[in-house]
Amino acid sequence: MTPLLLVLSSPSGGGKTTIAKALLAARDDLAYSVSATTRPPREGERDGVDYYFLTDQEFRRRRDAGEFVEWTEYSGYLYGTPQSEVDRILASGRHVMLDIEVQGARLIRQRRSDVVSIFILPPSVDELLQRLGGRGQSRPADMERRVRRAVEEVDEAQHYDYIVINADRTQAVAEVAAIIDAEAHRTPRHASLRDLIGRFKRELAQAADSLAKS
Amino acid sequence: MTPLLLVLSSPSGGGKTTIAKALLAARDDLAYSVSATTRPPREGERDGVDYYFLTDQEFRRRRDAGEFVEWTEYSGYLYGTPQSEVDRILASGRHVMLDIEVQGARLIRQRRSDVVSIFILPPSVDELLQRLGGRGQSRPADMERRVRRAVEEVDEAQHYDYIVINADRTQAVAEVAAIIDAEAHRTPRHASLRDLIGRFKRELAQAADSLAKS
Repeated sequence: MTPLLLVLSSPSGGGKTTIAKALLAARDDLAYSVSATTRPPREGERDGVDYYFLTDQEFRRRRDAGEFVEWTEYSGYLYGTPQSEVDRILASGRHVMLDIEVQGARLIRQRRSDVVSIFILPPSVDELLQRLGGRGQSRPADMERRVRRAVEEVDEAQHYDYIVINADRTQAVAEVAAIIDAEAHRTPRHASLRDLIGRFKRELAQAADSLAKS
Repeated sequence: MTPLLLVLSSPSGGGKTTIAKALLAARDDLAYSVSATTRPPREGERDGVDYYFLTDQEFRRRRDAGEFVEWTEYSGYLYGTPQSEVDRILASGRHVMLDIEVQGARLIRQRRSDVVSIFILPPSVDELLQRLGGRGQSRPADMERRVRRAVEEVDEAQHYDYIVINADRTQAVAEVAAIIDAEAHRTPRHASLRDLIGRFKRELAQAADSLAKS
């Protein structure tokens, strides 16, 4: 079965990272693509595991050389998905899961028609506002900026292949799992399925010819 | 969530009816559309439950009046899916499952772009040949006719949205269930999802405006 390139996005606090981690823990047919970033490592983060930590100069050099499937700027730092990561995982026969922002997802959809994109939406606007504000004692101006950003993020949801409402985490994880299982059987995606149909037709026609001669 | 119109097809003996019955037994969000036919009832079959049994004249009258979503001729008898059955089930909020031949599926795809079509393929050509011949002591000419028909049926598989290999029945049923769950979250299909996104955007923008004034 051809492995899939999966993109998971959500507004900030929408739960995409939690859902991605739950799926990665549960399925060995799925792997996480390690992103590159210019953000300094937080305590406990390891280079090559959590992120590839790059200098600004190195990130820009690789970006300009076309080494990223997608990249984006967020809170003053650059983030990108190395093409080499995606290729490595797909070559191992596993689906790749990218946990990325809406701008990056838009870039990938433009470059790769085979991407499967899923937008995770909180169950209600109130819930989303609570999650946006709940990360600390926000100043109204900071909170306003985050909410304006969420409007732009939600506006992108319509361009995703699937929308999953994250009202219950277990249910949302099961729904994303169903999307992965279903997409693995989509006809237009799979050269291997077209080959299989061709083989069936040839061998059946041969069987019919043998019967005609008998 | 908008209910789906599902079409399940397979070559003769491919297992579509067994899979459809297992799904209908397991899920109450799914209902079976009773077909109309000119074939006489077999022992135990009940009118309105297994089929709507119609005279040839009545079937043709309804067909010509456009009362069937799809119809086909098979072994000298006419079979069709009444539009009223499909409408009744969708209006009840349940997905409709049609267990139909490839010609009928082709007609539906031409008439309704929202159909989700799944082709069930046996695990191998040998297995399919065994199932085609295994229904009795076949004469070679009858068997040849069935195999030629199977070539045509398999040729149609490429036009289906999904292909599921029926190597293990439990696995195949789980895969069709995943397709149903995934399709229920596809963005382009759902006016309700587009409405939801619109509501999120409006309410978030209002929240941001309030924060700006505070």
